[in-house]
Parts: sequence; C-alpha cells; structure tokens
Amino acid sequence: MKTIKNPPIKEWTSICKRATFDQGNLEKKVITILEDVKQNKNEALIRYTELFDRVELSSVEVTNEEIALAKTLVSEELQEAIQLAKSNIGMFHASQKEQETKVETTRGITCWRKSVAIDKVGLYIPGGTAPLFSTILMLGIPAKIAGCKEIVLCTPPNVKGEIDPAILYTASLVGVTKIFKVGGAQAIAAMAYGTETVPKVYKILGPGNQYVTKAKELVQQDGVAIDMPAGPSEVLVIADETSNPGFIAADLLSQAEHGEDSQVVLVGTDESVIEQVNNELKLQLNLLDRKEIAEKALGNSFSVVLNSKEQCIEFSNVYAPEHLIIASLEPFNYIEGITNAGSVFLGNYSCESAGDYASGTNHTLPTNGCAKNYSGVSLDSFVKKITFQEVTQQGILNIGNAIELMAEAEGLQAHKNAVTIRLKEINNV
Amino acid sequence: MKTIKNPPIKEWTSICKRATFDQGNLEKKVITILEDVKQNKNEALIRYTELFDRVELSSVEVTNEEIALAKTLVSEELQEAIQLAKSNIGMFHASQKEQETKVETTRGITCWRKSVAIDKVGLYIPGGTAPLFSTILMLGIPAKIAGCKEIVLCTPPNVKGEIDPAILYTASLVGVTKIFKVGGAQAIAAMAYGTETVPKVYKILGPGNQYVTKAKELVQQDGVAIDMPAGPSEVLVIADETSNPGFIAADLLSQAEHGEDSQVVLVGTDESVIEQVNNELKLQLNLLDRKEIAEKALGNSFSVVLNSKEQCIEFSNVYAPEHLIIASLEPFNYIEGITNAGSVFLGNYSCESAGDYASGTNHTLPTNGCAKNYSGVSLDSFVKKITFQEVTQQGILNIGNAIELMAEAEGLQAHKNAVTIRLKEINNV
Repeated sequence: MKTIKNPPIKEWTSICKRATFDQGNLEKKVITILEDVKQNKNEALIRYTELFDRVELSSVEVTNEEIALAKTLVSEELQEAIQLAKSNIGMFHASQKEQETKVETTRGITCWRKSVAIDKVGLYIPGGTAPLFSTILMLGIPAKIAGCKEIVLCTPPNVKGEIDPAILYTASLVGVTKIFKVGGAQAIAAMAYGTETVPKVYKILGPGNQYVTKAKELVQQDGVAIDMPAGPSEVLVIADETSNPGFIAADLLSQAEHGEDSQVVLVGTDESVIEQVNNELKLQLNLLDRKEIAEKALGNSFSVVLNSKEQCIEFSNVYAPEHLIIASLEPFNYIEGITNAGSVFLGNYSCESAGDYASGTNHTLPTNGCAKNYSGVSLDSFVKKITFQEVTQQGILNIGNAIELMAEAEGLQAHKNAVTIRLKEINNV
Repeated sequence: MKTIKNPPIKEWTSICKRATFDQGNLEKKVITILEDVKQNKNEALIRYTELFDRVELSSVEVTNEEIALAKTLVSEELQEAIQLAKSNIGMFHASQKEQETKVETTRGITCWRKSVAIDKVGLYIPGGTAPLFSTILMLGIPAKIAGCKEIVLCTPPNVKGEIDPAILYTASLVGVTKIFKVGGAQAIAAMAYGTETVPKVYKILGPGNQYVTKAKELVQQDGVAIDMPAGPSEVLVIADETSNPGFIAADLLSQAEHGEDSQVVLVGTDESVIEQVNNELKLQLNLLDRKEIAEKALGNSFSVVLNSKEQCIEFSNVYAPEHLIIASLEPFNYIEGITNAGSVFLGNYSCESAGDYASGTNHTLPTNGCAKNYSGVSLDSFVKKITFQEVTQQGILNIGNAIELMAEAEGLQAHKNAVTIRLKEINNV
C-alpha cells in the first residue's frame, strides 16, 4: 500500500474519491432483462438461469424436501455457530423497536407514530464461490422481528441446480417464507414485478454484482423500495501507538479478500505503526487462499499519515467508510468526533469479522461515501413509521385560527374551509 | 364522484391503481439540464432562470437585506400563526430523537447506535401561484433539530426576481442557512453537484413538479439521497354513521384543490352518508376560488361502498393513502388494522389541514401507494444511524470460535484469521 504523508486538507476529498467503473451498456442490458421477466415471468427466469447459471430448472421454487435435506448436510458445529450469531443479531435488532410515544403538542392535539412492518420484502443473496448465509441472518432476522408477513429470498443455483445447504438452513432458521433459485437482474425483476410463483414484494434488500445493483436502482422507479445504493466493500482503520499492527493487518486483509475492487485505508499519526502494519501485511498475505484478490485490492488502497488524532477522525469523516475500526486501547476518545461511518469497531479486539458475523450489528452498510447520507440496514429498514394525530374540539379551537391564516396565505381556501366549518359547528353548539 | 358498490376483492388492486402520466421525453430534458448545471454552474442557473422564470438575475443568492425586509412584510398575525405551527412541529419532531441504548448481546460485547445529523441538506420549495412556506416548516424544523450544519433552500423567484416574504420569513425563522432563487431541475442539479455559490448537499428533500421529481430520481444515481418518490397528493376518508358529511366534503375538497391530478377517495358502509357527502361536495365546491382545479380532481376520484368496517380498513390498506381520515366518533376502533398509510387523522375534528400546517406531524408523505414501503419525512430523514460495537477480550473469547466456523464456511479465510490472531494472543498472555 502506498503511504501519503500529511496531505493538505484541500486534497482530502480527491484522495477519498472511490474508483469509478465504466458501466458500458450495463443499463441497457439490465432493462432488457427487467422487461423480459415482467412480460414472460417464470419462463424468462428459467431461460436466464439456463443462460447465466448453466442449469435447466423445471421449477425455480425450493421445495420443503430440499430444505429438510439441507439441515442434515450442515454440521452441528456450524448450526450452533449460526444460532449464536442469530441470538446476538436478534437481541440487538429487537432493541431497535420504537416505543409509541404520544405527544400533546397543544392542549387537545395528540400526535404519535407507529412502526408497522412492510408486508412483503425480498432478500437477494449473491451466489459465486462462497455461500453468504451470514447476509441471510442480517436481512432475515430484522425482517422477522419487524413482522414482515412475506419474506422472499432469491439466490442463484449452482450448475447442478442446487442451493448451498448452509443457505437453505439459515433461511429456514430465520423464517424466510419462500426461497427461489434465481440470481442476477432476473431475480430482482421477479421480486419487483412478481411471476406465477415469485411474489411481488414492496422492498428489495441485499448485496449483489453490478447487474443486481443496477436492477435494484431501476426498479425503484416503479415504486419498489431498496435498502441503499451498493458499491465495493471498504474499511478504514485509525491506528495509534496503542494499536496491535498484526491485528490491523489481519483486519485490512479480511476486507481486501472480499474482491479486487475492495479498498482498505489506514490512517494514523505514528509512521512506525504504519510501517509495521505494512510489514505484517506482506507476511500474512502470503498465507491466504484468496491472496491474488487481496493483493489487487491492496493495490487500490493506501495509508495516510496525519498530524493529530483529530485530523485522523476528520479524514475518516471525509472518507465516510463503510467500516471504521478504531484500533486503540482508548477508542472512546475518538467517538465524539465520528460523523460519517456505517459501523464502528472500538478497540483492539473489535475486529470487523465480529460485526460481519456475530456481534449483533448489521453488516449491510453504506459504501462509496454513502455513510454521509445513508444508514446501514436495521429494524427501521423493514418498517414504515405511520404518524397519527387526534385533534379534539378543544384542539381545533386552539390551533384553528392559525391554520386558517396560514392556508389563506398559501392561497388554499378549501384548506381553510375545512377548519372554518368545524369552528362554526363548535361555536353553534 | 362516481360510486363503486361492493367491488369484489380481486378488483381492489386495479381500483386503487393511480393514473400514470406519459412522461414523453422528460428524462432527456432533465438530463440535459443536470449536465449543463454540473458543467456551467451559476451561469447555467442564471440562464435557466431567465428561460423558465422569465427574470434575469445578477445573483441567485438571497441577501440578508432581502430577508430583513421580508420580516416587515409578513403580518404579525401570520408570523404568530407560523410560530405556533413551529412550536407544535418542533415538539413532535424533537420527541423522535432516539436514545442511545447499549445492548450487551453476549458477555463482553456491547452494541449500540447513535443518530448523527446529515451534515448538509437541501430543501426544495416549489413556486407557482402560492408561497408554500408550510413545507419549509416541515423540512427545516427537523433538519435543525437533527443538527444539520448546512441547510440550503432553493425556490424559484417571481418575474421580478423576488421570493415571497412568507417564504423568506419562515426560512429564516427555522434556521435555513442559505436561500437561493432557483427552481426546477436546475435547482436540484445545483444542490446535487454544487456551484460557485450553491453548496453541494448530501440529501435533497421537498416536493416539486415532474421536472423536479425526475431530477431528484436521477441525482440519486450520483450518490445524493432523496426523501422519497413524489406523486400527486391524495386522501382517503373512511366514513361511518357517526361522520359529519359537511366536514368530510370540506376535507375532500381541501385535497382536491391541490391539483387537477389529486385524488380523493371516500370509503364507507353506509350509502346514505356517501350520498350526503356528495351533496355537500356540490354545495361547497361552488364557493371555491380553485373550483376548476378541484372539479377536475373530483373527476379522477371515487367513493366505495363496502360491507363492513374491516373491509373499509382492508381497502384502505390496499390503496395505501398518503392521508387517511377516520371520520368517526370512535376512530380508535380502526387503528389496529391500519397497515399502510402516510399520516392518519382520527375523529371528526382531525381535518387534514391540521396536519398540513400545525398539529405537529409532518406533511411530506408517501404518495402513489408508496405508503406500503416508505415513511413520511421525520427526524429520521435528517440523520444517519451509525452502529458501534465494542468487543472485549472476554467478548472475542465468547464468540470467536463461532466467527471462525462461519467465515470458514463462507470461504473467507482472512475473516477467520482476524479472529484467530486475537485468540492466539489472548491465550499466550
């Protein structure tokens, strides 16, 4: 990783800019798939699955038998690990339930809001080399706690037309209601528009490649909500003289192994710590199965040496990292200043993997600087907050005149009349 | 309004479908404006303002002198009304502050989240025949309570290059930091990309015409967040034998006067109440300044007679109205069943105008069925919720093994290593 020493503040924004990728005619391709699935439904799904996943399916829906079989194929050890993660994630997300608080804003006027589950949600779980069952925990658990009635999951099958048992086991454990063997933009289309077997959902969540991401972006225009814009994963570590360079290197690599387009950033005031981390990186990198991926990701990555802890935090706020690790014995000194980050890991033992799997926080987080304006997935992602108000006779007497004046000033006479007719009725009684 | 009697449930979805409008080459036009402003900044803003608002400005920024003058031009009565509204809206939105709750998910692992303001937000206030200062209250007050540092407001000037004094007064009252005389897609572009004088913001909120809406949709693809998709305003009223038909007619008209494309829906079990409302509508309509607009909106509107209160609520959930009025002496009987609505008005004295201006709830709400998957604007709209976790030595000892197993099963060795290196260090101590 290259090291940038004391860059002037005016250069921070450009240093923090993520790489952009040429999308070519991605949008056109994705629109074609979306339209095709909208028109031809299951037939199109089966056709695309044959084309992209190289397997001819007779049906896209996973059967109960397949789910029952999967349970026998997941080791007891792994089942227990998944259950422990479920317990922690469940506890933290359950704590996010909002209490209804009634507020009397004026005598006779009470306002409150109520969280109500989004009825039908769709979860997308990417395929590829590894079965990302942890993402099912992160999306399915809050969906269930929120009370979503229909929780649909789409994930691409392998060439044998199968889904990894750990995926099926986890989906069943968290209460996913229907699982489909469909991946890519066609899966997003199926959940956005519905097919003969895939239910139409109101919100789609989950990570994916550029096709999936573009498809999610496009179906928004048809009224389907999505979790957030997605980009390559990233971590920023703030190190100080109390950090453990070996731990930091391991954390940077755990981010770097995600993909060649991942980015890791190391920020600190102490050049020798940064040097030590770089040395550790070389040692640890060589032992990785995914060495080539991680090596390429490190090529897009960098360290920054700055003058003070305050500057480190400020730089991090400009970068707005998905994951922020405060690798310090005294991480609480840093908290106050953090304004832009997805999830923050405090202290030398809070590795990013802990949050990726089992600490309890969600790992579906804003990337690409979106931590400036988006939150990660939480219980909030699965509910709408409906506001209620009760205005009594007393209430309308207290604010009616103000409403009449404001409505009149806005040129909205009928808005005014709706108050006037009530005030007249009250005064005549 | 036409009346639909006991439609079968399978027809409800199509009855509830909102009208769609041919967008023609709207997107192309808007992309041209966005690109132009991105390139040419203030020069483009001034050029478009001359073209669309028919005034040549030397500067788009509102001066302190203009703001000071505005205060002298707003009547004391109206100032007091606006202040009363501000107080109620402020009280309700302040109650939405989330307390940080630390949760120990496993011994040695603590998770919590912290709401942090989005640093820079942009508010769009439409121009047109009336000065919509009430929307400034709805957007500016929660922005200020959240702690947004930069609150930018764009609104189109009149042909004299002026902004309505009530707009300037309200913006200044709620703490807007900068006001610009720019409207339309060019205003959205200015706030999304920044110009020499308009700051680039991270999130844009507020209603607008189809150009503004399309521009907001498009700048999302450049990482700018928006409040929600926008469509024509709408209300659904559930009436029963305890309703006041005159009040209901007034409420329907207050919605209908918004625009020709507004929709109002009346649902009930009692045909005679619906008839009475229709009679009242005719009487009250004739007295309105905006009669023509309201009349056209009523042409797109309808009443539905159903068999039971439960069916009325179910129909309303399928429609998912922006505003839902329960025009009944016993509105609380209905609450439990409501799953899809933006804001709900309970009882005969809770007119929609109350929520539009001064009850305390927000009037920026999901339309076009989006109440199924979106919340209205609230304090949440102006913050990100950052998660934090502290994993101690004890904590990583408790969940480390589970993380190792899960990371291994996902094929992510470096994720596993980040735990292993820590467990080793702890056990060697």
